[in-house]
Amino acid sequence: MNSLKTIKAVEVIHVGDELLLGLRVNTHLEYLARKFTQYGAVLMRDQVVRDVGEEIQEALRHAWNNCDMVVVTGGLGPTVDDLTREAVAEFLKRKLVYNTDVERQMRERFAKYGYTFTENNLQQCYHPEGSSVLPNPNGTAPGIWIEVEEKIVVLLPGPPRELIPMVEDQVIARLLADGRLKPQEGYVQIRSCGVGESMLASKIDEVLGPDTQVSAAYCVHSGVVDVRFSAPVGMLDQAREAAEWVAAALGEDFVGYGEMNHAERILERLQIDGHSLAVAESCTGGQIAAALTEVPGASTVFKGGIIAYSNAAKTALLGVAEDTIAEHHEVSAEVACEMAKGVSQTMGTTWSISSTGFAGPGGGHGEDGVGTVYIAIHSPAGTHCKRFSISGERATVIQRATIFALDTLRRKLLR
Amino acid sequence: MNSLKTIKAVEVIHVGDELLLGLRVNTHLEYLARKFTQYGAVLMRDQVVRDVGEEIQEALRHAWNNCDMVVVTGGLGPTVDDLTREAVAEFLKRKLVYNTDVERQMRERFAKYGYTFTENNLQQCYHPEGSSVLPNPNGTAPGIWIEVEEKIVVLLPGPPRELIPMVEDQVIARLLADGRLKPQEGYVQIRSCGVGESMLASKIDEVLGPDTQVSAAYCVHSGVVDVRFSAPVGMLDQAREAAEWVAAALGEDFVGYGEMNHAERILERLQIDGHSLAVAESCTGGQIAAALTEVPGASTVFKGGIIAYSNAAKTALLGVAEDTIAEHHEVSAEVACEMAKGVSQTMGTTWSISSTGFAGPGGGHGEDGVGTVYIAIHSPAGTHCKRFSISGERATVIQRATIFALDTLRRKLLR
Repeated sequence: MNSLKTIKAVEVIHVGDELLLGLRVNTHLEYLARKFTQYGAVLMRDQVVRDVGEEIQEALRHAWNNCDMVVVTGGLGPTVDDLTREAVAEFLKRKLVYNTDVERQMRERFAKYGYTFTENNLQQCYHPEGSSVLPNPNGTAPGIWIEVEEKIVVLLPGPPRELIPMVEDQVIARLLADGRLKPQEGYVQIRSCGVGESMLASKIDEVLGPDTQVSAAYCVHSGVVDVRFSAPVGMLDQAREAAEWVAAALGEDFVGYGEMNHAERILERLQIDGHSLAVAESCTGGQIAAALTEVPGASTVFKGGIIAYSNAAKTALLGVAEDTIAEHHEVSAEVACEMAKGVSQTMGTTWSISSTGFAGPGGGHGEDGVGTVYIAIHSPAGTHCKRFSISGERATVIQRATIFALDTLRRKLLR
Repeated sequence: MNSLKTIKAVEVIHVGDELLLGLRVNTHLEYLARKFTQYGAVLMRDQVVRDVGEEIQEALRHAWNNCDMVVVTGGLGPTVDDLTREAVAEFLKRKLVYNTDVERQMRERFAKYGYTFTENNLQQCYHPEGSSVLPNPNGTAPGIWIEVEEKIVVLLPGPPRELIPMVEDQVIARLLADGRLKPQEGYVQIRSCGVGESMLASKIDEVLGPDTQVSAAYCVHSGVVDVRFSAPVGMLDQAREAAEWVAAALGEDFVGYGEMNHAERILERLQIDGHSLAVAESCTGGQIAAALTEVPGASTVFKGGIIAYSNAAKTALLGVAEDTIAEHHEVSAEVACEMAKGVSQTMGTTWSISSTGFAGPGGGHGEDGVGTVYIAIHSPAGTHCKRFSISGERATVIQRATIFALDTLRRKLLR
């Protein structure tokens, strides 16, 4: 029996005007990249194309010689702008055939959920001759799997809640079962916060020395810098060793390995020490709490929070003194500290964190313009506040204030 | 004087291994698409390529004949994997020249912020001959603007907080000043919630009739379906009329025009009616509040919230009776209603919304498995609760519960 060819190089094509009109963020690339990389395959390139048959075919031509597998997402739905099936069939010179099983399953699904079945759904029953159908448990458009010239072409529906389970349960699962993908580790990543990219790079160059086989690649995003260490096949230990050296050299600026985020790090530390946490948010409006509660099991440490958007809420629920607000303004270090102390008392926690600031577009007081944010941390050791000055639009100020708040707490916990 | 060529077609290239390794979501495409579409230019295609010189050049070749402008993002930083400058220069057959002004500004910037200047930063001082430098007020790597064969090639740094202000203040501003972009409206979009894509499409086909010049395109995302109506040049009024017809036919399922989101719609309605709003969140952990506070001016209506992640917080801060929790479980309609009533009283608001549920991965009680979420709305007309059953991972359950909560409130406000 011949063994099947290992999938080493993958090309991805997304079909959809909505992506090129800026109506939607393309989150599939990140998801698919993460999945395939985990099993040692490399994403060679990603193309986003319009709902135009000829342009879909051009993208396939461009991708074809460069890879072992093409993943095409979107354009499989019931409406006239869904053209992926036709374009792929034409590119591969295959007829479209009608699948009555798909029709039956679709009618059953509509009946089950009490939806009206409309005729336009029937175009989803066609697939290129010689392909197999991938059932879609969370939607109507099935996926399609085609093998041709030792390559695999997989078509998947666009909505993430339909695509993701299909990738997990049908695409990756099948390739692993076939032995065409294998679990493996391709690189070691560390995450840092508080040190610039160029400074970090020159520190790392020093640690690695001139004769190293290890290479480092950098990615900057929302206040953190990730560094990925890789090494030639069989030498991953050297990359791991380099990452450990750098982690130690970074001290407090080292957040964690891989995609470890601030919230995970904080909750892990507090849990080990038997502590509990609450938040009192003004300008961040719930985002600090949201970041913490996204971590599974957060509730063992995180007890809750108070979003005190009005001064009345700050005084009534957090016990901030009216005098403090009158004397120092609601955006001040004094109010931030009283908010943190107050929420820790109200929620009965040993630690707490608070935010107050001007997210914009309006607001400001004295020297504190739009973008000024005070973050206070309360712990058994006392209450301390830090002032940040953040540039950007409202959403950016809120997002970065959230990261800075979590990073301040993380550092405090390390000491 | 010859007038400059209008920018009609734009190709976008993102350079960066981090995008193809799944370490980062590419948000630039959505941002750039929104910007250019607003001024009548069409994004033809988007390519994401690795940090490999030859692959960057191949992407440029692929894009070249298809457009009036190429925007390249990423790969301009100080480290060895930043290869965009070199690849573009080679593709355009231009030498790289050294710019001492850039060096001086960079040294000044480092001194101002007290950073140590490292030699690797100097590679950012090179740019292709005949190009002009775009200052980067929020980072070290400057952008580059090159005009060649009636096309414009613009290179921009990858981090969003550096790229966005440069696009606004230097790229779009310059093209508008030159008359190479013009403000215009390309389509009319409506947003719906609560009706499936195929049902919506067949309703719309009926409204439009067979002889229409108006076309409709669909995009499904996190519980909403957007429909974009477009028409041939000069006939946008027909698209607008169709959108208005459909909006009326959709009734409550119509959320708004364009990118109007639930939070904006809710706050607008409450403000007109002189009402105020508070939230009590358990399983959504702050995300409902975060969605509301992202809207500028939210504080005129939104007073704050309580994130009651523990039962102690539910009883102490929201006045939920211990007996109610004991009898019905903390994930129940009864507790959701008491949470909503409680927060409305505590915060002194006329309206409130609450959530309690099992976001997973663990949890569940009786018939309420992981994904069960109760949403209660309290208003001067009384308190009502709705039960949702949501499939997916923890993050999906939290995200969809947030949308469902906001949508339930939006519908209530329409009645």
